[in-house]
Amino acid sequence: MTEARPYILVTNDDGITAPGIQILSEYLMRLGEVVVVAPDSEKSAVGHAITLSDPIRVTDYRENGIRQGYAVSGTPADCVKIAVGALLSKRPELVVSGINLGSNAGINVIYSGTVSAATEGTILGIPSIAVSLTTYTKPIFTPAAEFALTMAKMVLSKGLPPRTLLNINVPNVPQGEIRGVRITRQGMANFAEQFDKRIDPRQRVYYWMDGKKAEIEEGEDVDDVAIRRNYISITPIKYDLTNYDFITELRNWLQEVA
Amino acid sequence: MTEARPYILVTNDDGITAPGIQILSEYLMRLGEVVVVAPDSEKSAVGHAITLSDPIRVTDYRENGIRQGYAVSGTPADCVKIAVGALLSKRPELVVSGINLGSNAGINVIYSGTVSAATEGTILGIPSIAVSLTTYTKPIFTPAAEFALTMAKMVLSKGLPPRTLLNINVPNVPQGEIRGVRITRQGMANFAEQFDKRIDPRQRVYYWMDGKKAEIEEGEDVDDVAIRRNYISITPIKYDLTNYDFITELRNWLQEVA
Repeated sequence: MTEARPYILVTNDDGITAPGIQILSEYLMRLGEVVVVAPDSEKSAVGHAITLSDPIRVTDYRENGIRQGYAVSGTPADCVKIAVGALLSKRPELVVSGINLGSNAGINVIYSGTVSAATEGTILGIPSIAVSLTTYTKPIFTPAAEFALTMAKMVLSKGLPPRTLLNINVPNVPQGEIRGVRITRQGMANFAEQFDKRIDPRQRVYYWMDGKKAEIEEGEDVDDVAIRRNYISITPIKYDLTNYDFITELRNWLQEVA
Repeated sequence: MTEARPYILVTNDDGITAPGIQILSEYLMRLGEVVVVAPDSEKSAVGHAITLSDPIRVTDYRENGIRQGYAVSGTPADCVKIAVGALLSKRPELVVSGINLGSNAGINVIYSGTVSAATEGTILGIPSIAVSLTTYTKPIFTPAAEFALTMAKMVLSKGLPPRTLLNINVPNVPQGEIRGVRITRQGMANFAEQFDKRIDPRQRVYYWMDGKKAEIEEGEDVDDVAIRRNYISITPIKYDLTNYDFITELRNWLQEVA
């Protein structure tokens, strides 16, 4: 008797042609049946956008080692929704999003298309993982792909708590230089935005948004700190945004306006 | 000696020409100096997207009762960033986002451009409020505008806890039918997406995403329940997404792979 292999949905926000998603798919094929449903172009920093006012196009994609794939004219969250709601013949048991180029830690988590895809999987009741590599250039994918495979196995066997996904960031160094794994919290390193004001050839003003992480929080348990020190960071993310601690105080406020 | 009037940034995701933002601005002018920086077109369901790969255009806007306004070719989060980072001569003391057409409660909070603008204000250290009306048609704006004004005063006088904003939903009924105000938590009512598959005139397949809130959680403290019963709902939202409760368990997992 052979056990059924788990059915795994892989997505990202860098687009279906990005090397990170190919390598991730190849590794996860060792574990199960992999289907890739990903944006047809780069969708970084789209946050948890979904496409309601435009039609969504889907194209078959079987290249670069991807055996079952669909390129979608939408956001990462769209990809997971349309995969589960329309494209796939059966329900995936796991969603893995990545391997993203660029860390998704601290405030970045909020803007991240990579994390939003995993959040969407979680909303649909499917255990989900986001995996990012802390570089935009010269990626060293192997340690991230191996760790994604390890955590995928673990999540398939143990499940995840309600409304919770794993946000994994892997430092961009060779395997031997990774110092270990840390469970972290989402740090609050701010972005200091700069707006570069320019004049176009038709003499009209426009702006480019640019920015740098301004203030790195300290603390062994902060995601950005862990990856800066060459640890793999795992933050459990929950999408219940309620600030329960503030509810009592807020009730007191209302006494005043009642 | 006259006290300086507070400087208030108003934005939304329905676009600068939407009636909701005009009415909100008019009400807030009673309280302080209002500047409106809002998308130049509708940006619903954009989540916390920001614009990094396109130039951002800004146009002066002084119509429909808006005295100081800028229309921005970007997302609601972009509007708050560029207002504070480039357009305004001084730092606003309050950000109010709305009045949105359509509730932003339950899972919707995650996709909401209205809430993302208030989140962005909070990230920049400015107390922020999101205000939504529970209808897409025949809006009754006055109760929402009055309540926004009340809460704006309160937030200016008391401040808000770190990383916390107020997400306000107002039922679309005349003032006399509003039964009161409830402090709520973000409910987890799921969306049941449907994908409407169609063929375009060139014989190509496309999809429209559609969906309904499937399962309304019960409980007096749930945002969707409160507004359904004609209460104004206030949920304090915090953008630290860490699931602290799961950290110990996750540490145990890692013992197994170490």
